[in-house]
Amino acid sequence: MTAEVITLPRAQPSLDPMLALTATAMNSVNRVILDRMQSEIPLIPTLAGHLISGGGKRLRPMLTLAAAELIGYGGNRHHKLAAAVEFIHTATLLHDDVVDGSELRRGKAAANIIYGNPATVLVGDFLFSRSFELMVEDGSLRVLKILSNASAVIAEGEVDQLTAQRQIETSEERYLGIIGAKTAALFAAASRIAAVVAERSEKEEEALDAYGRNLGIAFQLVDDAIDYDSQAAEMGKDAGDDFREGKMTLPVILAYARGDEDERQFWRDAIAGRRSGDEELAEAIRLVRKHDAVAATRERARHFAQRAAEALSIFPDSKARAAMVEAAQFAVSRGY
Amino acid sequence: MTAEVITLPRAQPSLDPMLALTATAMNSVNRVILDRMQSEIPLIPTLAGHLISGGGKRLRPMLTLAAAELIGYGGNRHHKLAAAVEFIHTATLLHDDVVDGSELRRGKAAANIIYGNPATVLVGDFLFSRSFELMVEDGSLRVLKILSNASAVIAEGEVDQLTAQRQIETSEERYLGIIGAKTAALFAAASRIAAVVAERSEKEEEALDAYGRNLGIAFQLVDDAIDYDSQAAEMGKDAGDDFREGKMTLPVILAYARGDEDERQFWRDAIAGRRSGDEELAEAIRLVRKHDAVAATRERARHFAQRAAEALSIFPDSKARAAMVEAAQFAVSRGY
Repeated sequence: MTAEVITLPRAQPSLDPMLALTATAMNSVNRVILDRMQSEIPLIPTLAGHLISGGGKRLRPMLTLAAAELIGYGGNRHHKLAAAVEFIHTATLLHDDVVDGSELRRGKAAANIIYGNPATVLVGDFLFSRSFELMVEDGSLRVLKILSNASAVIAEGEVDQLTAQRQIETSEERYLGIIGAKTAALFAAASRIAAVVAERSEKEEEALDAYGRNLGIAFQLVDDAIDYDSQAAEMGKDAGDDFREGKMTLPVILAYARGDEDERQFWRDAIAGRRSGDEELAEAIRLVRKHDAVAATRERARHFAQRAAEALSIFPDSKARAAMVEAAQFAVSRGY
Repeated sequence: MTAEVITLPRAQPSLDPMLALTATAMNSVNRVILDRMQSEIPLIPTLAGHLISGGGKRLRPMLTLAAAELIGYGGNRHHKLAAAVEFIHTATLLHDDVVDGSELRRGKAAANIIYGNPATVLVGDFLFSRSFELMVEDGSLRVLKILSNASAVIAEGEVDQLTAQRQIETSEERYLGIIGAKTAALFAAASRIAAVVAERSEKEEEALDAYGRNLGIAFQLVDDAIDYDSQAAEMGKDAGDDFREGKMTLPVILAYARGDEDERQFWRDAIAGRRSGDEELAEAIRLVRKHDAVAATRERARHFAQRAAEALSIFPDSKARAAMVEAAQFAVSRGY
């Protein structure tokens, strides 16, 4: 058989237009990131670099860059601030890995496994401090306010998630509150700050905030759906981590709500950690599928992605807007 | 025997004059602390309160308040900033307890023992974010710069200390670099920011920075001396933690440098963790005493305390200055 490469027409929404839109500016952001994660203490750039160069999508700084394109900002202050956003995100990932006892992150051994929990916590603290140094250099108190508030809200969301862990009675409303805080707050802030440095109206700030916030919720919902999606699992993604950790996510909340008494007893035992082996994971995936809970979670995500796209309607049509709308569609279609 | 209470004349330097000097303002700072550690997530004030109301001396915010008295600052902006300083300190203590696997903090079970590592890391993150929110509310970019830089330096110092752990070849110079970063940087920043809000000269800022920095080094040296001081141990203080963790502190560095080849072999084994039981701790204390390494560490502390006091010579004599000088003397005499 001869190899013939056929490029299919793009059947699915993609992040590619947003990647293309922001590629040049992202090079500048990456230079700031690499420059500012340095330290005289060699372990700091080594550990930070393990995660930072580990193939993340840079989604949050990409939002800052895309929003700047959308509103036609001509300066470069947002490069430093986008790097600050990525540092905040990286710090939370490092601390999350310690909190969850993760073994893998982005398909590689997690930093805590290689370098230990102590160094991982401390390098997270360093990156977090460094992010504030970057913001202070930029000098906008409004940006500092937005991002310091987002950081506090993220931490609150993470603690709230911890408190809800292994609590089968967690409601959909509380779950939405948790992901709104731990994930969407930084998406919202990353988008909003582009309008702040460009000195655009409060209305534009709020539109970008709404875009980022709804997009963040959509991404998190789909992440949580994928963890119970056996098709995604067959495609080589890790599935079942949330289940084993007793994390309350929407697929479980819906399957539990829609289940009969026997099924509810299963979920109580499983989420409490009394039965959460491979056999129980298979049963959980079966129940989630039986009640269409992955599909329903994706439907919820579609709702928020729609709101994200709609929030951009105050801006004139442009390549940037189209790319951002497609990113919202992409958020929903991932992992199919 | 009848009980007769005799108040001895104060034979030793004390922190009392500084406590008295700052008592009223500290009430305001405590109100900010209690108000701003609140959150809708109940675990956050519970966990933070465990440490914050756990009887710490509030030494760092006290420096901000004392420095403000010294320079005659009449406003109240420094109350919020002193609370921010205490939040940074509390966040680092929470993370330190996770990093060190501490079981005790200030004589009580450490937060990580009661609430677990995950919540302890995340509440530390929350307090750290909250400290920046407080600074942003105050609105001074200079203060933000000083404290964000101090935070990054603290994290670097902690990582450096981690890297030096169990490394017998750590030099006195490197040790001084570590404690200058992990401890003295926040003492320096806490003192300096009083001059910033009072809009005093660079010279006064630098004098206060030097006071705080040298005082911080003196405090840390004496802390490290006490850990090898069997007299202090007999007085009910915990001793030997540093030894068991293989932390390289000045008493060990000096005893190792002054020891013969057999003694050096003992230290190599002990610090590497090959032999660090109670018997070895007793031997370590014996060797430290044999070489006067605790006394020499205290002598180093005296040198830095002297520099701290001298740095205040640019200010006219006052009750505040006398209290701050006595605090430096107190730093050296603690635990005798």
